[in-house]
Amino acid sequence: MLQIAQQRASEVDRLFPLSLGAEGSCTIGGNLSTNAGGTTALAYGVAREMALGLEVVLADGRILNGLSKLKKDNTGYDLRNLFIGAEGTLGIITAATLKLFPKPRAVETAFVGLKSPAQALKLLSISQNEAAGTLTSFELLSDFAVDFSVRHGIDVRAPLANRHAWYVLMELSSPRDDARAALESILAQGLEQAIVDDAVIAASLSQRAAFWKLRDEMSAAQKPEGGSIKHDISVPVVAVPDFIEQADAAVVKLIPGARPVPFGHLGDGNIHYNVSQPVDGDTADFMGRWHEVNALVFDIVLRMGGSISAEHGIGVLKRDELPGVKDKVAIELMRAIKAMLDPTGIMNPGKVL
Amino acid sequence: MLQIAQQRASEVDRLFPLSLGAEGSCTIGGNLSTNAGGTTALAYGVAREMALGLEVVLADGRILNGLSKLKKDNTGYDLRNLFIGAEGTLGIITAATLKLFPKPRAVETAFVGLKSPAQALKLLSISQNEAAGTLTSFELLSDFAVDFSVRHGIDVRAPLANRHAWYVLMELSSPRDDARAALESILAQGLEQAIVDDAVIAASLSQRAAFWKLRDEMSAAQKPEGGSIKHDISVPVVAVPDFIEQADAAVVKLIPGARPVPFGHLGDGNIHYNVSQPVDGDTADFMGRWHEVNALVFDIVLRMGGSISAEHGIGVLKRDELPGVKDKVAIELMRAIKAMLDPTGIMNPGKVL
Repeated sequence: MLQIAQQRASEVDRLFPLSLGAEGSCTIGGNLSTNAGGTTALAYGVAREMALGLEVVLADGRILNGLSKLKKDNTGYDLRNLFIGAEGTLGIITAATLKLFPKPRAVETAFVGLKSPAQALKLLSISQNEAAGTLTSFELLSDFAVDFSVRHGIDVRAPLANRHAWYVLMELSSPRDDARAALESILAQGLEQAIVDDAVIAASLSQRAAFWKLRDEMSAAQKPEGGSIKHDISVPVVAVPDFIEQADAAVVKLIPGARPVPFGHLGDGNIHYNVSQPVDGDTADFMGRWHEVNALVFDIVLRMGGSISAEHGIGVLKRDELPGVKDKVAIELMRAIKAMLDPTGIMNPGKVL
Repeated sequence: MLQIAQQRASEVDRLFPLSLGAEGSCTIGGNLSTNAGGTTALAYGVAREMALGLEVVLADGRILNGLSKLKKDNTGYDLRNLFIGAEGTLGIITAATLKLFPKPRAVETAFVGLKSPAQALKLLSISQNEAAGTLTSFELLSDFAVDFSVRHGIDVRAPLANRHAWYVLMELSSPRDDARAALESILAQGLEQAIVDDAVIAASLSQRAAFWKLRDEMSAAQKPEGGSIKHDISVPVVAVPDFIEQADAAVVKLIPGARPVPFGHLGDGNIHYNVSQPVDGDTADFMGRWHEVNALVFDIVLRMGGSISAEHGIGVLKRDELPGVKDKVAIELMRAIKAMLDPTGIMNPGKVL
C-alpha cells in the first residue's frame, strides 16, 4: 500500500514523494501499472520516475528480473518503462525498487484566491522562478470545486474569508529553512502585481492538513451535486487558461446550466475537468450525454496538442477513444508489442487496446 | 548539436541542463539514442528525462509522430523510452521536444581535497541533506586523474596547493541567492568532521571554468600516459568506495604497476574506472589484456548489483559481454523487440544485440 511505503521511508528519515487521494488503499504495483501522478508530480515526477527497477511476471510465466538499484544503467533497451503505465496488459509488476528522496526540513503551504486561470499561471511562473525545485505542489481549484468541498466534505472549512472565482493551493518543500521566506516573497510579488487577491499561509501542521483535506475531498464532494461527467486531460501548461475558457463555453452551450468543476495540477498542465449536472436536472439524462460531452472536450484538447488521459490511464472507459486520438503508427506499435508479449490476451483483457 | 541547444535555451533565459565533454560536437539525436548522462545527471537526470516527445523513423519507413509537449500523458504504452537508449537499433530519432528548466541565479563551485572515496561519500550525504535538488554536480576524482590532467591538459592548473589522495568537484545551482551560504555550510561541516582536508570555492567565473576544464580534459590527458583500459560502470551509490577498493586491488594484483585512474559521477554511482598502463610498460602487451581486466572489473560490479555500462551504452565493444551480465528474460525480450521492429536488421547493424 502506498501509505505504508510513505511511512517506511519516513521512518528512515527519507521521503517517498508519491501522494494521491487514494494513498490509504492503492498499491505500489497499481501505482506503477497506471503510472500514477498526484499532487507532487510537479517536483518529483510521476510514478515512472520513482522506480529504479521492476520484477514482472509475463503472460507465459517467465519472470523478468529487473530489480536494479542503479541510478544509471545503459545496458540495452529500457524494458522497465514498457511495463510502467501499461495497466497490467503486458505483464504483472510483482516487485519494484523505489527511489527515496531527502525528507524536506521545511514545508510551507498557502491557499490563494485569484480571478482567473491566467492569473494562476502568472503566479506559477513567479513561483518557479523563485522556488524552482522546491515548489512541490501547485493546484488550481475552481470556485465550484472549493464550494462543493466546503459544503459536502467532512470537517472542511473555507480557508479564506471571502469567495473568489479561482484558488491555488501551493506548497514549497525545502531542505533548508528558507521555504517560508520564499513563499512570502512569491505572495508579496503576486499581491503587488495584482495577481493575488487574498492569501493565507498555513500557520500550523493542522491548518496545512485542513488545506489538503479540502483538496482531497474534492472528488467525493461532487457526488451530492448529482451526476458528473469526468475528464482527466493535459495540455501544454501555458494553454490551460485557454482550454478552460473554451471547454466551459462549449459545455454550457451544449447543456445550459451544466456546472464545470475544473481542478488539478496546473504545474503539470493536468486538469481534472469534471462537469456537474445542472441544479435540479435529471441525472440519468445528463449522464446519458457522457460521450457527447467527452467528444466536445477532447476535440479542444487535441487541437491544443493535449492528452485525453494525463494520469488516469485508458482502461475500458477510454479504450474506444484511443484510436481516434493517438498517432496511427503509435497504435500499430502498441498492438504489435501487445501481440508479442501476450499473444493469447490473458493479461488484464479488454483494457487499453 | 548539444551546445546549440544549450545556447538557444539560454537565449530565452532557460536552462537545457545536459552537459558533457563532447557537447561541442555531439548531436541531440545521438544524446537521446545513447541516453547520455554527463555531469548534471545528479540533479536533472539523464537524457531520457529531458525529452517530452520524439519523432522516430522506423525500419520499414513508417514515421512515429510523438512530438508531444506534455508533461503528463497516460494514453497507452511508453514508446518514447523504447527508442531512447536503444542506440539507433530500433529506429532513428529525427526530432524531439525537449524539456527546459529555470536558469539558476547562483552557481557555486568547489574543489575539495580528501583522503578516500568513503570520505567523499560522507561529504555527498552532507551535501544532499543541505542542498538537495540544488546539488547539480558531485564528481569524484582520483589523484592520478587530476595529476594527468594537470600535467598533460592544456592550460590546466591544480586548484589546491597540496596533493591529496582524492578530490571532489562539486557544484550547487540555485534559483535563489543562497548557493554560496549552502556550499560554505557543507564545507564547514566537512572540515569540522575531518572529512574535508582542504577546499577552495571558485571566486570567479573564470576560476569555475578552470575547475571544469581540469575535469573535461581528464579523458584526453590519459593518452600521453600510454594505453588505457576503460570501464564505465555503476554500482549503488553507497557501494562505490568498496568497488574502487576491490577493483584497485584486483587490477594491481593482475598487472603489477598498472595505474587505476577512477573518476566520475559519485552522486549517480557511476565511475569511469580507467586503468593506465604501468610506467615504461609495453602498450601493446597491456592493451592485449583488455578483456582480462574487463572480466575482473565486471565480476566485482556484478557481485554488487551494478551495471557494466552506466552511460556509454553497449555498442560493439560490449555487445558480446551483454548476454553474460544481463537477465536472461531481459535479453529474450530485447531480441523479440528488435525482431519485431527491425526484422531485416538494417538499423545500426551489429550494435547492442
